[in-house]
Amino acid sequence: MSSATPRAPLRVTVWGEDLHEQRDAEVAKRYPQGMHGAIAEGISEHLGEEALVRTATLREPEHGLTEEVVAETDVLTWWGQLAHREVSDEVVKRVHRRVLAGMGLIVLHSGHLSKIFTRLMGTTCTLRWRSAEDRELIWTTAPSHPIAAGVPHPIVIERQEMYGEFFDIPTPDELIFISSFSGGEVCRSGCTFRRGHGKIFYFGPGDQDYPVYHHPHVRRVIANAVRWAAPDAVHARPRLIHSDTDWFLDGDGDGDGVRE
Amino acid sequence: MSSATPRAPLRVTVWGEDLHEQRDAEVAKRYPQGMHGAIAEGISEHLGEEALVRTATLREPEHGLTEEVVAETDVLTWWGQLAHREVSDEVVKRVHRRVLAGMGLIVLHSGHLSKIFTRLMGTTCTLRWRSAEDRELIWTTAPSHPIAAGVPHPIVIERQEMYGEFFDIPTPDELIFISSFSGGEVCRSGCTFRRGHGKIFYFGPGDQDYPVYHHPHVRRVIANAVRWAAPDAVHARPRLIHSDTDWFLDGDGDGDGVRE
Amino acid sequence: MSSATPRAPLRVTVWGEDLHEQRDAEVAKRYPQGMHGAIAEGISEHLGEEALVRTATLREPEHGLTEEVVAETDVLTWWGQLAHREVSDEVVKRVHRRVLAGMGLIVLHSGHLSKIFTRLMGTTCTLRWRSAEDRELIWTTAPSHPIAAGVPHPIVIERQEMYGEFFDIPTPDELIFISSFSGGEVCRSGCTFRRGHGKIFYFGPGDQDYPVYHHPHVRRVIANAVRWAAPDAVHARPRLIHSDTDWFLDGDGDGDGVRE
Amino acid sequence: MSSATPRAPLRVTVWGEDLHEQRDAEVAKRYPQGMHGAIAEGISEHLGEEALVRTATLREPEHGLTEEVVAETDVLTWWGQLAHREVSDEVVKRVHRRVLAGMGLIVLHSGHLSKIFTRLMGTTCTLRWRSAEDRELIWTTAPSHPIAAGVPHPIVIERQEMYGEFFDIPTPDELIFISSFSGGEVCRSGCTFRRGHGKIFYFGPGDQDYPVYHHPHVRRVIANAVRWAAPDAVHARPRLIHSDTDWFLDGDGDGDGVRE
Repeated sequence: MSSATPRAPLRVTVWGEDLHEQRDAEVAKRYPQGMHGAIAEGISEHLGEEALVRTATLREPEHGLTEEVVAETDVLTWWGQLAHREVSDEVVKRVHRRVLAGMGLIVLHSGHLSKIFTRLMGTTCTLRWRSAEDRELIWTTAPSHPIAAGVPHPIVIERQEMYGEFFDIPTPDELIFISSFSGGEVCRSGCTFRRGHGKIFYFGPGDQDYPVYHHPHVRRVIANAVRWAAPDAVHARPRLIHSDTDWFLDGDGDGDGVRE
Repeated sequence: MSSATPRAPLRVTVWGEDLHEQRDAEVAKRYPQGMHGAIAEGISEHLGEEALVRTATLREPEHGLTEEVVAETDVLTWWGQLAHREVSDEVVKRVHRRVLAGMGLIVLHSGHLSKIFTRLMGTTCTLRWRSAEDRELIWTTAPSHPIAAGVPHPIVIERQEMYGEFFDIPTPDELIFISSFSGGEVCRSGCTFRRGHGKIFYFGPGDQDYPVYHHPHVRRVIANAVRWAAPDAVHARPRLIHSDTDWFLDGDGDGDGVRE
Repeated sequence: MSSATPRAPLRVTVWGEDLHEQRDAEVAKRYPQGMHGAIAEGISEHLGEEALVRTATLREPEHGLTEEVVAETDVLTWWGQLAHREVSDEVVKRVHRRVLAGMGLIVLHSGHLSKIFTRLMGTTCTLRWRSAEDRELIWTTAPSHPIAAGVPHPIVIERQEMYGEFFDIPTPDELIFISSFSGGEVCRSGCTFRRGHGKIFYFGPGDQDYPVYHHPHVRRVIANAVRWAAPDAVHARPRLIHSDTDWFLDGDGDGDGVRE
Repeated sequence: MSSATPRAPLRVTVWGEDLHEQRDAEVAKRYPQGMHGAIAEGISEHLGEEALVRTATLREPEHGLTEEVVAETDVLTWWGQLAHREVSDEVVKRVHRRVLAGMGLIVLHSGHLSKIFTRLMGTTCTLRWRSAEDRELIWTTAPSHPIAAGVPHPIVIERQEMYGEFFDIPTPDELIFISSFSGGEVCRSGCTFRRGHGKIFYFGPGDQDYPVYHHPHVRRVIANAVRWAAPDAVHARPRLIHSDTDWFLDGDGDGDGVRE
């Protein structure tokens, strides 16, 4: 599709746990629309009419992720921390299936321990952490990747929670960012993964105790990632297929037809 | 550790479903000791006193994979096909945890749809298949990898089940073998993955209807993989760790001590 | 940049050796505009006004790749076979530097032995070959990658030169396509590599003796690759940089300024 | 080969530029046997009779790397800084060919700008640097890799030259270590690459101005890497091979014979 061709807007759903914001006045002050609200705002700021952004949260029915919502989502972003266990297995299964069928997924910060991320990764996704006002520096290791477009090297976040290695994830398909913290730790903080037909990006920065989702370069990275993760086409989830010999010779000599 | 130093033998457990062998006279004739028996024999043939090999099967209590057996296993090989769903979730969880703590895992042929493999991969692990006596050619794409040591290029298997792309797995850490089939399909048939502290190898060849586990080069690959997947040390499963600032300055100036 | 925003067209240069076409009446008949002409036509067919496509050939002064032309090229495609050694080292150095600074490079078929490709890969880039009218099937192993968008699985090319493993290249960053041939060989025939700020795609199909560059799906892949390889921004070639302590604290607190 | 089987010792050649040591009394005092002497000592300390270690330096005829020496070397380590340009192209070509034929190569610290490393990588291999007594912390990101065996997490080096991103290398096949520096920079400081039949490891630590090659954990990593990079068999350098149809059916039905 030519970039000059108008196309339907990306349908983005920003999922937030929305518990800190309800319980902690400091967090509510920092994020009056919730962290999900700030994340959604940052995406819209960068993608404009290219994206239709809505939000969903834990306390809504089916966590706001009904069959219909998930089916109408091209890219889902995920932030959770306190209540990973409260997310229903049914919804996780739904999201998992949809990712394998092509939906993009952006997992943010403490979402590393979410059911959906650990299900997709197959590992513990554990890491080392500390909340002690470290300064985080985010260094780009893949400067030609679209997710790194337009941000400085390094991105500086004055105060942040520390997330450090060993971060128990599969080797990323692409390592976009490595963070260092003033305490000396490092973390693979910007990682892509392809699973089934879906594209996944994990991004480390962001915490309820720091105004990270108001940071202009953090917003830029998330918006870049949303655009990168968008599916190029409608896919079915991969499935077991029995094929007779010469199944691909479909009469017109080019094996054309449905991509499996 | 120097190769001249004697070290404790590798403790290998060969797991087999052992259903075809019990139900189908042809399979029983082809594999009088079960497929697991043939696989175990091939490993011992190549590793000799370097390995202590035992077998375990579905119908044994806890599928033969009790806490004790799993704790005493350095490398586990897995073959299943008919009864993936009958493998208890408890045992799968036990094996999964042990892999993340460092146990090697060799997944064979139809094990691609096993609970343990799909749990580790996070994808459907589905593929295209046909049982029509295709000839399989196994081509080495990583000639310096120890798993490919000592086998011809290509390995020729006269009659085989076809497994073809799209094989819905994460991008392998290392792609060792690609197979082609006489019907024209291809498959990434030799793939390594690191998950947690564990090393995993998937190897496509092998089916109850063909004498593949008697093939000398298939046996060589499996034995190579067992040696490659052996853990170098005892690890704990990765876990969430809270670390105070300067935790690694432990008095002797080198940050030594326990590797997390 | 939003896809709704008009942007300057991609500047594409299609380089062809143009010797077979001059020497061999059969090839000239098959490719009246040269292979480079057919490749250029295929790109324009798919990218339309998104791309400005020109061609350059070996016998032109500086092979048509003057400083000016290279500086004005966003993506270069490369086809050569008979005369790799005749390409001047000066031009190769120029193209190499430009790739590291961000120009996309699409290397086609026998370009695998070109000076520019072997210089970028660091290996022999040798492989196994045969010209015996094999049928080639091109299987997609990265279905969510934009280079694979819109083509069948498999792409069928009725008659082709065989290129088979071992293909002595570095492990690709992304393996998009694997080909099989009727003789049984396989080849990693669609591979991406990032080098410096530049994106590179190697694509195996295409030979003077077969009308491969008229094949609609081959054309689609090349056009997809051109769009994928386009740089997102102007970069300088990476260079050695001395940095004083705290160099990134540039006054405005965000480390902004020039991306190195 | 079983680890219980005695095998011929690894033939290791430690190459050093040996200029700082001759010119600078401080360096000579720090490394009385040269840096190459300290590196060789560290390898022998860990590998014992498993390895036969010799050294070679720039000022020797053919830099000590005659055809005979290179042909008898299984693993070569490389340290240079001041005089990369003085290394003859003939010797670089010889080493390059030998790596592609299977010789292991360990590139240390400022060797990142050596002719042999940039030739193998295809990129500028430039990075950011500063010599200001930064503390370096080396974090393991591949804990099950043999190169990381037996070292703490992190390795602490009290005073070091800083090497930081963007480090212009191809994406490593395996990222074993990431370093952080007290100034905040990070670097992919332990990287593996396979090229042809050869295994390559780049390791960042080490400088003439700091006693890094006396550091016990740095020595351990280098010794681990030497063992890992050792070839498993004698290979020919990959070459272009013409193959007739059915070339692999060599009479005994298994396609056996010479691995190409």
